[in-house]
Order: sequence, then structure tokens, then C-alpha cells
Amino acid sequence: MLNRFELDEFIKAALKEDIALGDITTDSLIEQSSVSNAVYIAKDDGIVAGLFVSERVFKILDEGIEFVRKVNDGERVKKGDIIAEIRGNTSALLKAERTSLNYLQHLSGIATKTDTFAERLKGLKTKVVDTRKTTPGLRALEKYAVKMGGGSNHRFCLSDGVLIKDNHIKAAGGIKAAIEKVRANIPHTIKIEVETESIEQVQEALAAKADIIMLDNMSLDEMKNAVNLIDGRAAVEASGNVNLESIRKIAETGVDIISVGELTHTVKAFDISMRFV
Amino acid sequence: MLNRFELDEFIKAALKEDIALGDITTDSLIEQSSVSNAVYIAKDDGIVAGLFVSERVFKILDEGIEFVRKVNDGERVKKGDIIAEIRGNTSALLKAERTSLNYLQHLSGIATKTDTFAERLKGLKTKVVDTRKTTPGLRALEKYAVKMGGGSNHRFCLSDGVLIKDNHIKAAGGIKAAIEKVRANIPHTIKIEVETESIEQVQEALAAKADIIMLDNMSLDEMKNAVNLIDGRAAVEASGNVNLESIRKIAETGVDIISVGELTHTVKAFDISMRFV
Amino acid sequence: MLNRFELDEFIKAALKEDIALGDITTDSLIEQSSVSNAVYIAKDDGIVAGLFVSERVFKILDEGIEFVRKVNDGERVKKGDIIAEIRGNTSALLKAERTSLNYLQHLSGIATKTDTFAERLKGLKTKVVDTRKTTPGLRALEKYAVKMGGGSNHRFCLSDGVLIKDNHIKAAGGIKAAIEKVRANIPHTIKIEVETESIEQVQEALAAKADIIMLDNMSLDEMKNAVNLIDGRAAVEASGNVNLESIRKIAETGVDIISVGELTHTVKAFDISMRFV
Amino acid sequence: MLNRFELDEFIKAALKEDIALGDITTDSLIEQSSVSNAVYIAKDDGIVAGLFVSERVFKILDEGIEFVRKVNDGERVKKGDIIAEIRGNTSALLKAERTSLNYLQHLSGIATKTDTFAERLKGLKTKVVDTRKTTPGLRALEKYAVKMGGGSNHRFCLSDGVLIKDNHIKAAGGIKAAIEKVRANIPHTIKIEVETESIEQVQEALAAKADIIMLDNMSLDEMKNAVNLIDGRAAVEASGNVNLESIRKIAETGVDIISVGELTHTVKAFDISMRFV
Amino acid sequence: MLNRFELDEFIKAALKEDIALGDITTDSLIEQSSVSNAVYIAKDDGIVAGLFVSERVFKILDEGIEFVRKVNDGERVKKGDIIAEIRGNTSALLKAERTSLNYLQHLSGIATKTDTFAERLKGLKTKVVDTRKTTPGLRALEKYAVKMGGGSNHRFCLSDGVLIKDNHIKAAGGIKAAIEKVRANIPHTIKIEVETESIEQVQEALAAKADIIMLDNMSLDEMKNAVNLIDGRAAVEASGNVNLESIRKIAETGVDIISVGELTHTVKAFDISMRFV
Amino acid sequence: MLNRFELDEFIKAALKEDIALGDITTDSLIEQSSVSNAVYIAKDDGIVAGLFVSERVFKILDEGIEFVRKVNDGERVKKGDIIAEIRGNTSALLKAERTSLNYLQHLSGIATKTDTFAERLKGLKTKVVDTRKTTPGLRALEKYAVKMGGGSNHRFCLSDGVLIKDNHIKAAGGIKAAIEKVRANIPHTIKIEVETESIEQVQEALAAKADIIMLDNMSLDEMKNAVNLIDGRAAVEASGNVNLESIRKIAETGVDIISVGELTHTVKAFDISMRFV
Repeated sequence: MLNRFELDEFIKAALKEDIALGDITTDSLIEQSSVSNAVYIAKDDGIVAGLFVSERVFKILDEGIEFVRKVNDGERVKKGDIIAEIRGNTSALLKAERTSLNYLQHLSGIATKTDTFAERLKGLKTKVVDTRKTTPGLRALEKYAVKMGGGSNHRFCLSDGVLIKDNHIKAAGGIKAAIEKVRANIPHTIKIEVETESIEQVQEALAAKADIIMLDNMSLDEMKNAVNLIDGRAAVEASGNVNLESIRKIAETGVDIISVGELTHTVKAFDISMRFV
Repeated sequence: MLNRFELDEFIKAALKEDIALGDITTDSLIEQSSVSNAVYIAKDDGIVAGLFVSERVFKILDEGIEFVRKVNDGERVKKGDIIAEIRGNTSALLKAERTSLNYLQHLSGIATKTDTFAERLKGLKTKVVDTRKTTPGLRALEKYAVKMGGGSNHRFCLSDGVLIKDNHIKAAGGIKAAIEKVRANIPHTIKIEVETESIEQVQEALAAKADIIMLDNMSLDEMKNAVNLIDGRAAVEASGNVNLESIRKIAETGVDIISVGELTHTVKAFDISMRFV
Repeated sequence: MLNRFELDEFIKAALKEDIALGDITTDSLIEQSSVSNAVYIAKDDGIVAGLFVSERVFKILDEGIEFVRKVNDGERVKKGDIIAEIRGNTSALLKAERTSLNYLQHLSGIATKTDTFAERLKGLKTKVVDTRKTTPGLRALEKYAVKMGGGSNHRFCLSDGVLIKDNHIKAAGGIKAAIEKVRANIPHTIKIEVETESIEQVQEALAAKADIIMLDNMSLDEMKNAVNLIDGRAAVEASGNVNLESIRKIAETGVDIISVGELTHTVKAFDISMRFV
Repeated sequence: MLNRFELDEFIKAALKEDIALGDITTDSLIEQSSVSNAVYIAKDDGIVAGLFVSERVFKILDEGIEFVRKVNDGERVKKGDIIAEIRGNTSALLKAERTSLNYLQHLSGIATKTDTFAERLKGLKTKVVDTRKTTPGLRALEKYAVKMGGGSNHRFCLSDGVLIKDNHIKAAGGIKAAIEKVRANIPHTIKIEVETESIEQVQEALAAKADIIMLDNMSLDEMKNAVNLIDGRAAVEASGNVNLESIRKIAETGVDIISVGELTHTVKAFDISMRFV
Repeated sequence: MLNRFELDEFIKAALKEDIALGDITTDSLIEQSSVSNAVYIAKDDGIVAGLFVSERVFKILDEGIEFVRKVNDGERVKKGDIIAEIRGNTSALLKAERTSLNYLQHLSGIATKTDTFAERLKGLKTKVVDTRKTTPGLRALEKYAVKMGGGSNHRFCLSDGVLIKDNHIKAAGGIKAAIEKVRANIPHTIKIEVETESIEQVQEALAAKADIIMLDNMSLDEMKNAVNLIDGRAAVEASGNVNLESIRKIAETGVDIISVGELTHTVKAFDISMRFV
Repeated sequence: MLNRFELDEFIKAALKEDIALGDITTDSLIEQSSVSNAVYIAKDDGIVAGLFVSERVFKILDEGIEFVRKVNDGERVKKGDIIAEIRGNTSALLKAERTSLNYLQHLSGIATKTDTFAERLKGLKTKVVDTRKTTPGLRALEKYAVKMGGGSNHRFCLSDGVLIKDNHIKAAGGIKAAIEKVRANIPHTIKIEVETESIEQVQEALAAKADIIMLDNMSLDEMKNAVNLIDGRAAVEASGNVNLESIRKIAETGVDIISVGELTHTVKAFDISMRFV
């Protein structure tokens, strides 16, 4: 995960966005010496993710605030469960509340959605992974939330993984040429993945010793054929039109990895509220 | 809206996140002199928002890229419609694609959702507004998207609007005292809004000359009573448990404003793809 | 007020400006283990503002420095009064001294000037407010100093308040059209102020339900007429050619608010010196 | 002077402070296609400084704005003179106006004040110089304005000049020891200045071959004695209690340099207004 | 490679370091209208790298400067060869010269050193690669220079490649456990490399299906044995005590990759001077 | 030296470069509660510099890490000596190791090289100084390391020292004119140095009262003549083609200062390793 000092930079930017020149309501009404107790309560069932972010939001405003986790990231909570107890300066609690919750609800929403996908794969070896379809500025945190929900990560960005797509293949003059050119150029520590749209392309990719073969928008039958053909000589990733209804059937074709864009691009905030106690 | 130079800072941060040290696939395979044409195609029906952001993503990577909008922000598109034509350096197109789409799909998703809420209010004077439940780092853009979808904005942050809540009232010793203290402290250019949970509190807020009275989680009958009582002496905002089913009935109680958190906290990415042509 | 972490960013920039690569005199001569006691002494009579900034300057260089305030922001001091006692690492004291004092003398200068204006309004309901004529980079601190001196704040910037001026009125085709267009576009939490130059314009603004009417460069008689006409239906702000001689007479016309540019644009540093003891 | 890219960073920070999320008045009322002509008019007599800053403020918001200088930095203007003509996008003109003027009025105020001091030294070799008593964040620009007003600069910061003061002398065990320690430690390109409070200290500083001797708060007679004693073997700087009344008499003692804190710490904004034409 | 906007940030930081508040010599002496021609001349034989960086340094100070490359990055030059012709504003040429050359000489020094290592491997399949022993702040550029000199890159940083070392193995309880734990946690796009110090460890790594096996500080005989044992089932990297004398012998053991720290940690600046013509 | 908060910014940038999104090996394998002891061991003889930087790298990742110096900056170590003992969180130790060592090895390399040059000057008054030929982004630290190795610093940058070169002299119309123009423009606290290539130029520089005269690429005889001619009326700096063989002979001509580019532009990393104990 991100270093704490880098996480702090993100959080400070978010706090500036919300607090700007101060909370003119709270600054007018709350005594600076006032101290309160509050709790985070789950208003729904799901998986929590992002508590360390949520905690840092408070600490950045006031190091004296205590934030006691009652669950850990990746754990399941039920409606009504207390997620954390928070104590300290009332002004700081009120100023940090919204930003802290905005992070926690978004990341827990991702973890909860990932969990529902991962649940469908129970008993199978197939892994559900995220994509680069993330919210600008939040990729590191969103990919962390995917893992908390039981998913795995795909490449983080364009420079730590290779995915040879249609346009790349055309430009290189074929899959073989593309793989060779890429292999000559990249660090030896990174695998090469090729996007394929037909069995013929799968065969070409295999022949050129691709490390990972992506089956893009193939039918279940095509996927089965591809998996049989590949036979363990490359990892197999299914991509395209994956949803809660289709994911298990896709997995049962024998693919190793299924990538799902909506894990991060279509998120329902997980409902959590802060209550003063 | 944000100045262009400030928008550019956000976009550069997002590009760094995705491109980091380069697109090792594209850098290995695409000739630097290669030029391509592409289009953005809507894969669903909805409202577009964020084209100026999406365009800047390309321009920041390569000023020579042409980005011709076929629709404007706030306009309705149908599945299959071409949203924009993009021409220029192939490498830059491939590197910018994901970040550009991540912005455009997220913001168009917000505009599209807002539009469905605003549609329910047709013929009524009531306005649907957003909240501070936004994605950390994206508030300015998300609030812009709400307007593109036919909604209005609530306060942007804690320093440009007053909302006196339960804890503030307790700390001040009542609604009257709270309003007076706040009024003495804030610029004369900002209105004072009070959150109320009962008709008694509405009466107190009225007596203290609140500019805006929020009815928090009240029943339809309570809201009707409150609106009658207030009788135009303050603006009235309904908040809490608003959804597509309930929003029209709430509006019909006569409230002026309805705030809806899910406009920005629960977003379905609007599906758009870039196709090389 | 600004969050501490944002204030720290400003202070660090100021310290870099003054210390750059080090204090080559002090680094050559002062033992790193040397510890000293110093005091801040007022060299004039006035109002202190900015002690928390002045203190942070020291703490940022050396967290071990003790800074004991003998007065608080907003309090009156006389020539010779001790404002603060400062103890700690001698090198850090010497390096921070100038930057710490530059802040404190400038902000106390603003508070002291504001106080002389506020004094003239004793017994009247009229408030003296600042403007956007501030020193680039110091607006938040300067507006804070105005409040410490007994003044109030006008809008902080162009996005948290509306002021419809001559050019806006022309572009919109009249005051009524301008107010309606603005009202449709801005958050419902912000008031609308209109600048007027004649009684006719005041009437138009009233008719269009402006929240605040600014009387720009009007004579005392015109102002009295305007106040009578408005009769409490909008707040009234006087602006233009306000000085220590004129402010009380202007206030006695019955206006609610008088804005004074020189509070922040023409500042006499309040004389304070640091003495080692 | 500062590089343009560094100046731009300062200006962008100032624009963010004033424009933040947009000019909600102008954005509501001015057509994006509207174009206007405006002029900057001097409302007083004085010396202009900072036109390049003022111009960049407009250009950063909209590169298409034309800014035609009718005078140059350092030139004298009279009340009513046109300082610059500005043409371009109306919205950008309105948004940039305040920040552009805030810089120009502050810097021209410094140049104008410096000019009145420099005028008193006409016919003498003595130079008036600034100090480190500058506004936090504006030192480079303020020192530039001093030069435009006919003054010279003292050291910019603690790392590009040596000034050995009372506490340094005590810590080193005397002026001689202090000078030797400093000389051994600093680059050979930097001169050594010593603050003296008596003729005895002047003698010590001379003996230790100080490059510059500051006479701190000495009487006119003491200064004359010191100048005679030093007799060209070191540059002589007078400091303390310098004002428009005293400066010529101080200069006539024969000192080379007189430093004046109020050039930058007590500034009257030079009155300039933007008028649409 | 880095995006241009990110490169520009690095260059601006370097220019600030050298120019700070201006070039007081050049600003005093060179007419702002003066224009000059200059050339970069090689003072030694070697490989050039970093011309695009060197060019941007000039352009950032003055976009009007022309920089005509006479060779490209990665090309060999001889003493006396002209590397580039530079024309434009004399002040900007003088201010940018040092920073531009500091980059170019350092990066060309790395390329030249890498070339001498790569030369020793002529005719063999073995590749010479860099390490993480780079100059803080310059890693992206230094790794680029290694490629220009005919080398390849190892992982860029700790998050885009796996290298399981001694301490990791101990903590995990053996190579097998370590590989399995890592594999379960990382993206499927990244290979796993294990550092081994004995044939036994090589066998364990093979059994656990490591993608890359590093032979750390092994003798030539041990390396040969390891290569035979591995027999193409994993890539083999040699590391430790590699120098110009030993590299070919190491390569002849059959290893695929040899990593050499001194490519980037011990650099002789390649001598280039700018001459006005 | 740099303030700690500015140093921290450099270190954080370096850590981001190396750790980016985390150490995927360590994060997978090391228990967060694991604690270790390690030592820094010299693998060669030399002078240590940069321990405070190296220590901050660890502290920034984890404030709880103890870093006990066994030697101080500027002290000589022998192969096998323990330089520091480091205790704390194992993950943080592993993540910080490379960045911490990259700084320490580079800076100790500079100190060690400077020491070998300074050794040659034993018994002479001549000082060896650095140049502006530093690594972009590291100048402050590299110049500090030169001092730790027994050298002195030349000007830090273009704005804190004057060096009048060939092009400046031509533009000004001679050395005399150049010196006078510069003197009129710069702060009185900075000396003026002129680069000369002949005895005639030395005479001109002397006549114009240059503070420092640089003898550029002169023969030993020319230097002797120049030193005799100058006779203490200006400081004398030798520059050009200085190496370990020539430096003592150059010094024996009587010059005061010898500047050596390779102190910072051609650095051999001083070999240090971290060993877990």
C-alpha cells in the first residue's frame, strides 16, 4: 500500500476541498475545549475497507483524536454494527466527519461489491480481478478495497504490466512480432499479456509464448475451447460483459482470472453514519 | 467552474497514476509518427458531462490532438451516438484513453442519474440538489455534473454555507442562540440554514429568522405542515431517504429544495467506448 | 480559520524564502546545543493578531521551542508590553525570528488599523468590513486579522458571494434580469448583492429582491434616502471613499455595513521586536 | 528576477485564493464569447512597478488577452495617466482584475515610497536599501519593486549574505573570533557584514577586516566619527530609525548605504483602477 | 518514458536550484534583446543520452530557443563532434547552460559506461541490466540512459517487481512458502524472482516455480552448475562483484541477465561543453 | 544546511520513486509486527557524509526506528567499520534500505573524493572548492558533502555570487565596464569574481577592483605571474584541468582557491551495506 506520507497528501487535498477556509458553522458555535464521543455505525450489511484512511482523516486534523476500530478492513459487518469508536475534540470530529465517511463508504462499497462477485466463485480456482476503470485520483485505494473484498489486482498502470491489444497487434504486424518487440524492450520481471478475439489469435499468442492470454468478449464455448487449447501453457483471463449472473459460468470454463470493470467504476456507497454518543 | 490551470493539475495527477513511467506496451510497439482517428461512442442512453475534462486529458499529453465534440455537456445521447471525434498521435491516444474515459464515464454517470431525479420533478418548482457526499478529490467536477444533469448545487463546502445541526444547537443552547452566534460571526453574504426534526424546531428556526429550514427525515404530512407554517418566510429543504420513488411526493408537499446524496455517492459509470476508425 | 496543515504550508514557503540553504552566519557561530530565552515586546500601542502563526514559525523549525503567549489575538497591548516569551534552541530562534515577526507585525498592523475604524462606529449597529483588496497569498490571514481588530468579513472570494456590478448589469440587460439569472445558477445558500449608483437602481434592486444593496460612492444624502427607501427589506452596504474622517457620518445614515479597502491594502507594520533575555 | 515559471506558480496560488471554484456572478451573467476593452488608470502620482506580474495574471487565465503597457516599470505616472490597455475575453478580464491590481498596487506602492526616500539622497553617493522585513511570500517581488523605485537591495535571505549581530558576537567570543569563524565556513564569494553599536566595535570590526560595517542606531555624530575612522576600508551601512526626515542628514555623515525597513513593511497601495472603455 | 509534463517538473526544480532569484551577473550585463548561437561539443568519445531533457531545459526558460540535435540519444560521438546547435536569447542560453549540461553529461556518462559493459557481451545472448542503486530523484532518467547505452532495465521499483531475498525467505519459512505467499498476493502480471546463494536454494526455487532465479555472488563454477540445473525452466540472473573484467566470463556461464550496480551508482560525467559561435 | 522540512520533501520524493505503491515482496511476506536489528558496514575506506539524510529516510517511513550513529559526518571509516546501528520495524527497514543507502553512498563518495584532493593541499593555505557541476536536484546535499570531505564551497547558484565570464565581458565592452555595471546592480553583500585568460585581463580586473580573479586554464607559469601581479589585492582562484596529479603544483603557485568540477560530477559510490544482525 501507499506510504503513510503519500496517503496523507491525498487526505489533505480532500480535507481542503471540504473545509477550505474553515467550518463557519462549527467555528461559530462549538467551544474549542469541547470533547465528544462518537461511533461509526453500519447501516447495511457488507465488507469494511479503508479504516486506516478514515482514521488518518481525523488524526490529520487533530492528533489527539482516538479512533478505536471494532472491526478490521476486510471483515464483514451487519446493519447496526459499530465499526469504530471515535473520541476527541468536538470541532475536529465535526469537521472531519464527512471526508472520513466519504472515503470509508466508497471503499467499503467497493469491497462489498467485490465480495458478492468473489462469493460466486466459491470452490473454484478462478480469481476475480479489477481493471484500470477506476476513479481518477483513487486508484491505489480502490485496488486495495478490491483485495479487502476478496478480489485480486490486475496491473496497476500502464508501466507495470503489458497488455497487447488490437491496435498494438496491427501496428506490430501480428501477435508474434508484437510479443517479440515488447519482450526486447521491457524489464525481464514483467509478464506479457495478449488480448485475443479468436481461437486463431489464441494459437498465435501461445506460439509466441505469451505469459497471459486474455479472451476478450468470447462466448462460453469459445472460452472452453481456448482453455483446452492453452492447457496450462499460459494463464487465461476472461474479460467483457461479466456480471453477477454470468461470472460463475465463465469461471467454470476453466479460466484463471476474470476481470470486472464495475468493481471500481460503478460503486454503491456503503451506508455508514457517525453518531454522537 | 475551476480555472483551466487548476483542472490541469487534477488531470496530471490522474495521468501520472495511470501512465507512471510510461506505457510499456505502446512505447514498445507504436511508431512515434503514427497518427489515428478515433471516436467516442455512447453504449447507453443518458446525459453527457465532462467533455472539457476528457478533452484536456488528451491535450495535456499532446497539444496537437484534435478533439471535436459532437454533443455538448448536458445534452442527451442515445446508444450508438458519436460523442466526439479524436484525431492525432496514436501513442498519445492510447495512453490518454483510459484516463479520459474514466472522467467522462463517471461524470456522465452523475449527470444521467441527476437527470432521472430531475425528470420526476417536471412541472413543479422544487429543485433537486446535491450534498457533500462526493468522491474525495472530485467535488468540483461532480457538482458540475449535477448541474449538467438538471440539478442544482448545495453549498460547496463547510466554509461557504452554514448548516446548523443537532450538535451545534445543543452546544449553543438552542436554535435561537445558535443562529445569533453564527450571524455575528459569518460574512453578511451567506445565508443560514437550520436542520429541524420537528414542527417545534421549525417554529424556533422561523422565529430566529433562519434563511433556510431543512426538514430532516420528516414524514410527508410533517413536511406539509412545515411548509404551511413557514409560508414563504424561509426556503424549505427536504432531506433524508429520498429516492426515485419518493421524490415527487416529497416535492408535492411544497418544499423548495430536495437534497439527494446518491447523486454523487452511488454512481453507475455511463458506458462509453473509444473506437479507432 | 485555515487548518493547521494548510497554514504550515504557507509558513514553510515563507521560511524557505528567508532561510533558503541555511543561515550562514548563525550556522557558523552558534553552537547547536545553545539554548536561549527571548521575549516579543510591543514597541507601540495596538491590537495583536497572528500569534498562532508566529508560534508555528518557531515550532516548524524546532518542535522543542516553547512559545508562551502573554496576550491573546485581538487583545490590546501598550508600548513596552511583553507579548510572548520564547525559549529554546538559539539557532532556531535566530532563524525563525524574522519570518515570525514579519507575519505578526503585518497582521497586528491590520488588526490595529481595523480597531481604529471600528472605534469610530461605537454605539452604532453598523459594521466595518474588509474587501478583496488583500495581499496576494495572505487573504485568509488578513481577513482573520480584520476580525481580531473588531471588523467583520465580506465575501472571501468570487465563488462564495455574489456581487453584481455595472458590467454584469449591462450584460444581463438590467438589474432584474441579472438577479434572476444569478439566482437560478447559484447554490441556494448564498445571498445576492447588487452594486447601485442611484436611487433608481436601488429601487430596481429592491423590486428584484436583492438580499444586499451596495451604495457605491453615494453622498451622505443619497445614502440616507436609500436607507429610508430600503427600509429593512435588504441589508445596505456603503462603499467608496471611506476613511477615518468620514466613516462615522456614513454610518449615521443608517447603513448596515461599510466596506473599507485600506484595512488590508495599506498596512503599517505594528512594531514588535524580539529581545534575548 | 524570478523565472517566469516560478512567477506563474505564485500567481496561480493568488488566483486560486480569489477565484477558487469560479466567479459565480460572472459565470452566471457574462456570455463566454463577450469581448471587452479596458484600461488601467493611475488615481495618484507615483512610480509603477509590477506590470509584468499584472500582465501574467491575465495571460494565465486566458492567453488570448492583450496587455499593452503604456509605461514601463520604474516610470513615473500622474493621476489620470493610462498605465495599460487590456483587451480580451470579458469573463477573464473580470476574474483577473482584482488579483492583477492587488499585485500592481502593492508593488507600485513600494516603488513610490522608495522613490520618495531616494529623492532625498539626490546628489549624494549614499544608496537606500531594503531589509528582510518583507511580506511573507512576496520577497522577490518586493525587492524588485524597491529597485524600480530607485533603491538597491540588501541580502535577499539568510543564506546569501552574512550579518553578524550582537548574539553572534557573544556566542563567538568577540568580533574578531566571529569574523574568522564565519570566513572559514562560507563561500569566498560572499562579504561579511558586522553590526556595531559603538566606536570600539567599529574598531574591532575594522581590525578583523569586515567587508561591511553596520552602524546600528547611532547618533549623527557617532556615525560621522565612524565614517572617518573607517576611511574607506569597509563599506558603511546606517540602520535604525530612518525616516523621510532623517535620511538626508544620515547620508551626509558619509555612510555608503542606509537600510530602511518601512520600504517594504509599511506600504500604501498605489491607487489604480480598471475601467471598461 | 516519463510524460513531458512530469519531466518538466523535474527540470523546473533543477532550474530553481541553479537560478533561484536570477543570474545576477547575466541580468546585469546582457541586453534582453541579445541573441546568440552556440554548440554543444563532445570533449571525449562516448554515447549520448538525455538530449530531450537538455533541450527542455532551454525551452522551459525560453520557448523561442531552437535546439537542433546533430546526433540522437543512443548514438556514438567522438571528441570534437558537435552534438547540438542552440540558438536564441543570450540570457536564456547562459542561464540554462549549466543545468542543461549537468543532465546531459550525467546521463551520457551512464550510457557510455553501459556501452562499455554491453560491448563485452557481444555475440552472447546475455543482457546487462541496471539495479535500484540510482541517484535519488533521477531513477527514471538514469534507467533510460542505461537503455540508450545498450543495457536493459531491471524492475523500476519495489512495487513493479518481486525480489525475494534472504530476510524474506527466513520470515516466510523457506523459499517455497515465500513464493506461494507472494503469488497469492501480487497481480498476475508480475514475475517472481528469488535470490539464491547455493545450489540447494536454486533447487528449491525451481521446485516452487520461480520465474527468475538470481545467483548472488556465486563463483563461475557454481553459476555454470546452476544454469545447467535450471535448464531453461527459469530465467537466470547473475549479481554481485561484476566489473568490466569479470562480466564476459560470467556471461559465458550461460546466465540470461547480469545486473551491475555501478552503471548508475558510479558515474563519470561525459565531458561536453557549450561554445558560443 | 537545508531545513529539516525541506530535506524531508526531497526524501519523500526519493521514497516515492522507489516504493511507489508499496514493496510487494515485503508486504506479502513480512509480519507487520516483526522487528529487526541491522548495521551499516563500510566496505571500503573513506569519509562518511549524509548520515542525517540516511537517518531521516528511515524515520519518515517509521518514526519508531532507532538510528544510532557510530561515526559522525566528516569522520574517516575503514573497511569493516560499523557506521550505524538501526533497529525497528522490519518492513520499514527493508523498504527504506535502498533509498537510505543511495543517499549515503553518493554523499560519502563525494566526501571521500574531496578528501583525497584536500589531502594533496596539506600544509598550504589553498582551499579546494566545488563548482555548479552538480547532480540536478542534489546540489545542497552535494555541497554539504564537499565540506564534510574537507573542501569549501563556491557560490551555490547564479543568484548568490557573481562570475563575469567571456561572454559577459564582450557584451559589456570590457572588464572595467562589466564590473561597474554589475556593482551598480547587485546587493552590496556579494563579491565580484572575473574569469581571466591572460595577464592583460588580470590587470584589467585588478584595475577595476574585482574582489576575486579566476585564472582559467592557465599554465603554472602564468598562474605564478598572475599571483605575483595580484599580490593580495584580490583573491585568486585557479580553474580548469585540475586533477589529483596537478592540484598541488597549482596550489604552489600561490592561488587561494582551486575549483574542481569532478568533486561532484564524477562520483564513485562509497560502498556501504546494511546487514541484519
